[in-house]
Amino acid sequence: MPTEAHMKSILQSYVDGFAAGDADAVIALFAEDAVIEDPVGTPELHGIEAISEFYRNAIGTGAKLTLDAPIRASSGAKAAMAFTVEVAGMRIGVIDVMTFNDAGKVIRMDAVWGPEDVTA
Amino acid sequence: MPTEAHMKSILQSYVDGFAAGDADAVIALFAEDAVIEDPVGTPELHGIEAISEFYRNAIGTGAKLTLDAPIRASSGAKAAMAFTVEVAGMRIGVIDVMTFNDAGKVIRMDAVWGPEDVTA
Repeated sequence: MPTEAHMKSILQSYVDGFAAGDADAVIALFAEDAVIEDPVGTPELHGIEAISEFYRNAIGTGAKLTLDAPIRASSGAKAAMAFTVEVAGMRIGVIDVMTFNDAGKVIRMDAVWGPEDVTA
Repeated sequence: MPTEAHMKSILQSYVDGFAAGDADAVIALFAEDAVIEDPVGTPELHGIEAISEFYRNAIGTGAKLTLDAPIRASSGAKAAMAFTVEVAGMRIGVIDVMTFNDAGKVIRMDAVWGPEDVTA
């Protein structure tokens, strides 16, 4: 089981990767067989190839993430963070929940946000 | 599928129930067959009887919840919120993720926090 400190560092690296426009750094946080659902309620993306395309697009838009509160991490395999995305003149309130595998990679990411969390 | 507005109102009612010291109001948000894992990494509690005991104890401590950011809700069945619990002279940073059934009740609650999210 990854430590709380490890999981928090990975979520911080995710925020930092967006800040630096470094898609490779973000993609490297995920396991080969990871799954993401962003936002929850849309089809899941399976595997590192689909995930890589997703993050190259997302980071290519220039999206930046600002934490709304400190990152939380459990003594289980999940960590989560509340943040605001600024992209294309919009602000989107999001909570990402990341589940880790024993190797310390992100095996699942669920992004909880919807249309009502988007403001101009 | 419950609406975003419905799910947000339920999470706000959860915060309000703690504020009012009203365990019954909080318990009423959950389905009979709900499951909670609080914090993630500890054994799940199954069913409304175990959940009722959990919330009668938690709310009996006088714990109060302050949102750290607006509640998020997806177009799927999940909503989430980041908040700080004040209880017994401690502050605990938490993210709760709630999953809903089609009747609009909470069917699962995962609380993401760990020892490192507790401050004096």
